[in-house]
Amino acid sequence: MDCLFCKIISGEIPSAKIYEDENIFAFLDINPTNIGHTLVIPKKHSKNIFDIEEKDLHSVMTGVQKISHAIRDAVNADGINVMNNNEPSAGQIIFHTHFHIVPRFSEDGFRHWKGKRKYNDGEMEETVEKIKKSILQ
Amino acid sequence: MDCLFCKIISGEIPSAKIYEDENIFAFLDINPTNIGHTLVIPKKHSKNIFDIEEKDLHSVMTGVQKISHAIRDAVNADGINVMNNNEPSAGQIIFHTHFHIVPRFSEDGFRHWKGKRKYNDGEMEETVEKIKKSILQ
Repeated sequence: MDCLFCKIISGEIPSAKIYEDENIFAFLDINPTNIGHTLVIPKKHSKNIFDIEEKDLHSVMTGVQKISHAIRDAVNADGINVMNNNEPSAGQIIFHTHFHIVPRFSEDGFRHWKGKRKYNDGEMEETVEKIKKSILQ
Repeated sequence: MDCLFCKIISGEIPSAKIYEDENIFAFLDINPTNIGHTLVIPKKHSKNIFDIEEKDLHSVMTGVQKISHAIRDAVNADGINVMNNNEPSAGQIIFHTHFHIVPRFSEDGFRHWKGKRKYNDGEMEETVEKIKKSILQ
């Protein structure tokens, strides 16, 4: 399979490796938001949140937690964003599941998108029903 | 404990509930990025990624995966961002662990922060060593 991250795991392509165990691999993002920005990936290939096996997702998150502590301490971050982008519209560029760990610093200037869209009358209730129905299927 | 999300779980404060099981609770964010923006939280209180118990983190992520599928189908999203903000500098406002599921649509205009900071000469290698040392401690 011609997957950049699979080649990074195998060592065919070099990376700034942070951590590796039986199930996951972590390395610095070469195009970081802040210094210490790390990607945590499962060794077993999956595309994203929609097809990753539950046990691999759990392994990745155990790694994300462990490495978040380490990054915070290593770069004296004030906080951490954990982000996972799925499909091109959400910013996914490499189609191997990955979780970003982005160290944050007070006043580093990055802004969230929260509150950009309001619900019209009745739209919130309608959305709840649509999602609940979709879960039950 | 005076925690807004604990009160939402208990029903003391109403919410647009999407899903609930033994370990987790999910509801629409009242201040959404896009329609269908949902928060998934553990029932057992923790502050964020730094203190949540591993089993609760795994339960939350199992829910995030299940609900991501449902939201995508319910609102016909093209993609999904999963985001978790830890500490005020990272945008955390409610201090009960929560994962955002943000449905995304092609050309909805939200931009990521990736590539905002470059490594100076030697800084990447130095950062790897600092983080690796911090994991080992």
